[in-house]
Amino acid sequence: MQPKTIISKKNKEKNQNESINLSLAKNYKEVRNFTELLCKPLVTEDYVIQSMPDVSPTKWHLAHTTWFFETFVLSKVNPNYESPHPQYSYLFNSYYVQAGERHARPERGLLSRPTVEEVYRYRRYVDENMLKFLERAEEAQMEKVASVIEIGLHHEQQHQELIVTDIKHVFSVNPLRPAYLNSIKNNNSKPRYISEINWVEFPEGIYSIGHEGIGFAYDNECPRHREFVESFQLAPRLVTNREYMAFIENGAYERPELWLSDGWYAVEANRWKAPLYWEKKKGYWWNFTLSGMRELDPNEPVCHVSYYEADAYARWAGARLPTEAEWEIAASKLPIEGNFVDSGNYHPVVLDDEISDCALLQMFGDVWEWTLSPYTPYPGFKTLPGALGEYNGKFMANQMVLRGGSCATSKSHIRKTYRNFFTPSARWQFMGIRLAKDA
Amino acid sequence: MQPKTIISKKNKEKNQNESINLSLAKNYKEVRNFTELLCKPLVTEDYVIQSMPDVSPTKWHLAHTTWFFETFVLSKVNPNYESPHPQYSYLFNSYYVQAGERHARPERGLLSRPTVEEVYRYRRYVDENMLKFLERAEEAQMEKVASVIEIGLHHEQQHQELIVTDIKHVFSVNPLRPAYLNSIKNNNSKPRYISEINWVEFPEGIYSIGHEGIGFAYDNECPRHREFVESFQLAPRLVTNREYMAFIENGAYERPELWLSDGWYAVEANRWKAPLYWEKKKGYWWNFTLSGMRELDPNEPVCHVSYYEADAYARWAGARLPTEAEWEIAASKLPIEGNFVDSGNYHPVVLDDEISDCALLQMFGDVWEWTLSPYTPYPGFKTLPGALGEYNGKFMANQMVLRGGSCATSKSHIRKTYRNFFTPSARWQFMGIRLAKDA
Amino acid sequence: MQPKTIISKKNKEKNQNESINLSLAKNYKEVRNFTELLCKPLVTEDYVIQSMPDVSPTKWHLAHTTWFFETFVLSKVNPNYESPHPQYSYLFNSYYVQAGERHARPERGLLSRPTVEEVYRYRRYVDENMLKFLERAEEAQMEKVASVIEIGLHHEQQHQELIVTDIKHVFSVNPLRPAYLNSIKNNNSKPRYISEINWVEFPEGIYSIGHEGIGFAYDNECPRHREFVESFQLAPRLVTNREYMAFIENGAYERPELWLSDGWYAVEANRWKAPLYWEKKKGYWWNFTLSGMRELDPNEPVCHVSYYEADAYARWAGARLPTEAEWEIAASKLPIEGNFVDSGNYHPVVLDDEISDCALLQMFGDVWEWTLSPYTPYPGFKTLPGALGEYNGKFMANQMVLRGGSCATSKSHIRKTYRNFFTPSARWQFMGIRLAKDA
Amino acid sequence: MQPKTIISKKNKEKNQNESINLSLAKNYKEVRNFTELLCKPLVTEDYVIQSMPDVSPTKWHLAHTTWFFETFVLSKVNPNYESPHPQYSYLFNSYYVQAGERHARPERGLLSRPTVEEVYRYRRYVDENMLKFLERAEEAQMEKVASVIEIGLHHEQQHQELIVTDIKHVFSVNPLRPAYLNSIKNNNSKPRYISEINWVEFPEGIYSIGHEGIGFAYDNECPRHREFVESFQLAPRLVTNREYMAFIENGAYERPELWLSDGWYAVEANRWKAPLYWEKKKGYWWNFTLSGMRELDPNEPVCHVSYYEADAYARWAGARLPTEAEWEIAASKLPIEGNFVDSGNYHPVVLDDEISDCALLQMFGDVWEWTLSPYTPYPGFKTLPGALGEYNGKFMANQMVLRGGSCATSKSHIRKTYRNFFTPSARWQFMGIRLAKDA
Repeated sequence: MQPKTIISKKNKEKNQNESINLSLAKNYKEVRNFTELLCKPLVTEDYVIQSMPDVSPTKWHLAHTTWFFETFVLSKVNPNYESPHPQYSYLFNSYYVQAGERHARPERGLLSRPTVEEVYRYRRYVDENMLKFLERAEEAQMEKVASVIEIGLHHEQQHQELIVTDIKHVFSVNPLRPAYLNSIKNNNSKPRYISEINWVEFPEGIYSIGHEGIGFAYDNECPRHREFVESFQLAPRLVTNREYMAFIENGAYERPELWLSDGWYAVEANRWKAPLYWEKKKGYWWNFTLSGMRELDPNEPVCHVSYYEADAYARWAGARLPTEAEWEIAASKLPIEGNFVDSGNYHPVVLDDEISDCALLQMFGDVWEWTLSPYTPYPGFKTLPGALGEYNGKFMANQMVLRGGSCATSKSHIRKTYRNFFTPSARWQFMGIRLAKDA
Repeated sequence: MQPKTIISKKNKEKNQNESINLSLAKNYKEVRNFTELLCKPLVTEDYVIQSMPDVSPTKWHLAHTTWFFETFVLSKVNPNYESPHPQYSYLFNSYYVQAGERHARPERGLLSRPTVEEVYRYRRYVDENMLKFLERAEEAQMEKVASVIEIGLHHEQQHQELIVTDIKHVFSVNPLRPAYLNSIKNNNSKPRYISEINWVEFPEGIYSIGHEGIGFAYDNECPRHREFVESFQLAPRLVTNREYMAFIENGAYERPELWLSDGWYAVEANRWKAPLYWEKKKGYWWNFTLSGMRELDPNEPVCHVSYYEADAYARWAGARLPTEAEWEIAASKLPIEGNFVDSGNYHPVVLDDEISDCALLQMFGDVWEWTLSPYTPYPGFKTLPGALGEYNGKFMANQMVLRGGSCATSKSHIRKTYRNFFTPSARWQFMGIRLAKDA
Repeated sequence: MQPKTIISKKNKEKNQNESINLSLAKNYKEVRNFTELLCKPLVTEDYVIQSMPDVSPTKWHLAHTTWFFETFVLSKVNPNYESPHPQYSYLFNSYYVQAGERHARPERGLLSRPTVEEVYRYRRYVDENMLKFLERAEEAQMEKVASVIEIGLHHEQQHQELIVTDIKHVFSVNPLRPAYLNSIKNNNSKPRYISEINWVEFPEGIYSIGHEGIGFAYDNECPRHREFVESFQLAPRLVTNREYMAFIENGAYERPELWLSDGWYAVEANRWKAPLYWEKKKGYWWNFTLSGMRELDPNEPVCHVSYYEADAYARWAGARLPTEAEWEIAASKLPIEGNFVDSGNYHPVVLDDEISDCALLQMFGDVWEWTLSPYTPYPGFKTLPGALGEYNGKFMANQMVLRGGSCATSKSHIRKTYRNFFTPSARWQFMGIRLAKDA
Repeated sequence: MQPKTIISKKNKEKNQNESINLSLAKNYKEVRNFTELLCKPLVTEDYVIQSMPDVSPTKWHLAHTTWFFETFVLSKVNPNYESPHPQYSYLFNSYYVQAGERHARPERGLLSRPTVEEVYRYRRYVDENMLKFLERAEEAQMEKVASVIEIGLHHEQQHQELIVTDIKHVFSVNPLRPAYLNSIKNNNSKPRYISEINWVEFPEGIYSIGHEGIGFAYDNECPRHREFVESFQLAPRLVTNREYMAFIENGAYERPELWLSDGWYAVEANRWKAPLYWEKKKGYWWNFTLSGMRELDPNEPVCHVSYYEADAYARWAGARLPTEAEWEIAASKLPIEGNFVDSGNYHPVVLDDEISDCALLQMFGDVWEWTLSPYTPYPGFKTLPGALGEYNGKFMANQMVLRGGSCATSKSHIRKTYRNFFTPSARWQFMGIRLAKDA
């Protein structure tokens, strides 16, 4: 199932081809600019560091997203296209084996050259070529590449999120604990009781799950298909730091019986004692944020927990995590609103006191929500043809699905059917917990 | 959902309590005897070896299954029960954290003591106590432990299978390549064409999946629940060595585009070139079996492949693996018949030529069939209370479900709803491939 | 410098050839018998275990020492000689690359076959062939192989010591802590003061170091050569457990400034807190011995320490370790007497109270004494021709020399010029400490 | 034995104290400037990379050498001295455990902050304080710290060499193979025969080895002491690339019998096929240099070989490596002249054709020469008091001595008694081979 794009048949009839070119060009400029905007707070040295294999240097993100357009668009539409450097295609391919050899992932932090300036020059060069192409491309050409360009832009938005989460990790391993920016408001949220959970109930039935129709989606969200879902209950809000502290204080990290077997192994192997970025100083929990070290705000949603921690917390709380189908059913009638990267918080925020506790809140933005669902193909799933077929399908093992986007996600990037996925031990994304229950 | 036992209410009315005791005692003796029967071909030294962390020494299996009855039955029904050695409970606990500390799994092969003879003495001791108990136990007592004893017997049957697969691995790492026994018939199966696959078709619908009613089942098979399944097709037979050789000869182990990302990583890290136990000598494939080295029989079902290999093979063949629901739907109307450990082959067998190719064949026995389904809880799943709750639930991450039993499984152990599970890189069990397709 | 053998020229004139054959045969029988005598306390399972890569299974020692005679004697003198099994030469070659491929060292514990009985049968077979050969061999033949046989016997004596130290390690990792034998006297040594060290002084000078003349020696002890040695002082006795406990109580294992850089790394990586085989229970130190667990005797020589610990102890004590030249100078006038394996203690013993403290004591037996000297070739060193040239020379990097033999060494095996060597982190041999000082 | 400094008694009488201050200040400025001169060819990103644990980022070298003066001079002479940042002492301590906690060595490449500019500012700050101090310091104060300052300058010269060798490694792992500078002359050396080696002979005798008297030396070069040395022969020149190629072509890297046991292990584990920085392209050897990739010049001294390779080469050539005493005896009458970093080659150079082959050539500069000598204390060795005592002594295990300096060493830094040391597997320094023989 190929990603649907804005140039579906119906659209084509309505719109002139020119306007498709124009709208894609506008989109292109916006997305590409935002990537660079995110890098504004960085100094040259920050662009170079790879603090763990999962993390890539900012410089690499800037170049790799550019390589995408060069490889899958420019060199396809123009056989004479020349890259600024013959080795960039080697250095900046991430994992597309069908697109050629590539530089080993864990060694991305070993490259001082090309310099940051050269990478920005590379971006300029490709941007100019792309915009020139979009200016002149005819309908037949656009038909072939418009959907690839659209994927390229969504791809770049994914890397925007990674730029944010990766630089957070890079800064966190530096004993100086530098701040990315100082915009995060101080945590002066008022003390609150842990509110009872007013579970929101959903009836059993056959539901349609997945993407369909006009509008972009990744291949892994397709095809829309039927699932029988038993009745279930969903917590109207995310688990908070206060609740998670109670879990810790109850000895969670010393009680193997609360954990999945692999989860307990991860606790021991990594000596986890709390979520990533929590530090205890003189009896108080502190939290490393993109604004530096802050005292932990108990009212904020808990964040930077692994699937194993989310699962153990849910077990301890007498509940479970929702499946991705349950989450999507619940989300299906809600507007996509929340604390996204667009709001400039770069951190999950405290739920407003006045907001009713009966409605489903915080479903979008703030933190990606771990689901009980391993990342598998939907019935009838088909990958894209060619190297882009590697985009999603080849990761369908040993990963869990997360839903809803985070404070590092662009609002224009998320969908109700969007399936994010990470290995169950990953913690460096903004990942949190929403509870569910059998009805 | 607690395992159902033969002493369900209905049964109790019909039978006298005595006969329950008698039947359990008979069952107990049969299962316990069969374990020791499997060890007959071994010499003392064979009992001691642990050839990799996944493998346990035979001696350990003999003791651990005994420890189970001691810990979960004898010491519960008799507070004065004394184990032959105070440290056995430490040495022979596998992973039940709620049953106390345990000896590290990868170090099971470092124990020369207790000796094999002492372990057999331990078995004698516990058997006598168990049978004495079953002789005298009254209804109230039986009510409490009958289901645990039944689990213990099924547990021992699982370890019987492991004794067979583990000793195969132990022998395989020995350059002398010893044979466990010489009963495997020579491979004189006639040359055959690769028959076309006459796909068997199943319609879409809401199906009931999982265990329900009288008869034993593990907690992970429950509760029986509804699933919506799209129409699908299933291959009537297992993939053969001949077919798998074509896959190899087509460069499968050098073509990353055929593999899941983690699968390709496993291929490279482990330098896989063929299924486990295949060896190429002078251009011909040989196969290590429990009867020693044999030339590969192309008509046998392919065996000892990982999930990654099964998945890549299916992709290469233009098909996919079945989900566990699909497998169970297909199996639901078939009798449980096949090449089990009871037949004494200790190896998958060639399909009889005369047998019609239109029916579903080889669904039970021969090899465990990898499914597309990660091992997750069924909706409404509940673990057993106490330490036995660790039996199945805590492994529900990073594992894939296999169905149908193998040539090392006892016929009386398997069920249509039986869910076996292993990590996707495991190969040392008798694991094979059946293809599926969207309709 | 080729090992000197008893058939040097002078000897040949005096003796008839027959008597050389006879004396070698006698020697052969004695050494070979003693190896098997050491195995008497073992049960079959004990022979199989390899508790760490440095340790070999007893079974392997029995076979490897046999392989030596088969490979370097029988198959040289008789081109038709046939080994009982064509793969034994593969399985039981240790590290002689010129003698062919070999089974990986860390996998020696994965072999249940050949069985213990088969290995003994292998010994019988080779012994018969060897003795038959020695009965009939003529002078010319003997000239070629007598020195190799002699090396083979010393080689077997080295493995006798390893049988003792390896089985100690094997038993130590078993939570049952089995005893090899119960002959070790209980530690009822009287409380004593830590006696002052009455340093024994030696003048500066040019000394001759190394082996020369009649009598067997390894190539690495040759040639005898001159060294200039500054005046120095040697402690008359070994460091005791009591002294070492003071070192521990002074925080030794938490004070990096006392250690070599690599030593401190080893302390942290291995979490060393005390010598190997020490265990603290309820505030008291216990010691695993070949007679099982015993309370630590403070008057015994400290044992099972690494070079790093010996070096750190010496630094802490305001002294240093002796060089191997210093040790050899001091030993040169002493009779070779001490607590060897022949005395049946299998453990270092407490120094007799009455013995004068002014003389050099415990120089031989009890524990190998770490020296300050890395294991390097003596000036003019030459390896043996052929595969036996690998015996000693190829280990001359990253090892330290130890001197004097231990309670697991045969008295007939040790020499004043004998150079034992281990990596500085090794602890499983009987290794201890004697202090030295600049004069 | 404390390092001797220019303010020894005799000097003090002759000179005014002021002039000592002046001369140290001059020295200080020269050395500190040269460090920064070496960094001129670098861009900001280059300063940040750590390409392997042995390598440190340039930025770190710049800061660490500065930290040395801050910690061991400024904060000693002025209790009110304040560092620009409270965490610099943590980040830039290398291994002085007595000087406090420190940042883990392998994580030096994870720090984007402090920035390069901040590090230069840190240097400015400390330089100003140091020069101010040297301007005003009185005799009593100077007495305490002059020798420490001198150590600090020699310490900085060591790090200058590391800046060169580390950046070479950093560039080498980058597929772009950047050049540090382009000053290296092209290799147009004329084809030559491999000249016979005209061995230079030295008689046996008691020689004095080590440092003594006026002039700076490290503690590990002291005390001067006597050694008896047998007569020996030394090759008058270094082994060349042509000779080493013959060794390779003779199958050296496939022949375990040529290697030390640990050496062969290193060959296999690291898949060594040639010296570091050699690459074979289309049948020709290329060489990564600080001027980028160049075709290998067969007349240049072989470089970037490990001790294991040097040892194996010598064995293959029927020779051995010299001991450090032999090297020092041979060097004792030669002037210290050669291809040092001062000459700006940053690479070993071809020996001039006209130069007589009878004299000892290339003893200084070009490449560090591996010796047969493990790095051990000289008889009577004493470490410096305090944290500086960790400078040399604690590395006296598992390292081999190298002599003579390299093309990356400052001429003013080297001495005939200078003992450099590295683990036998290190290759990233400019390390080469000179042969020796018994007379």
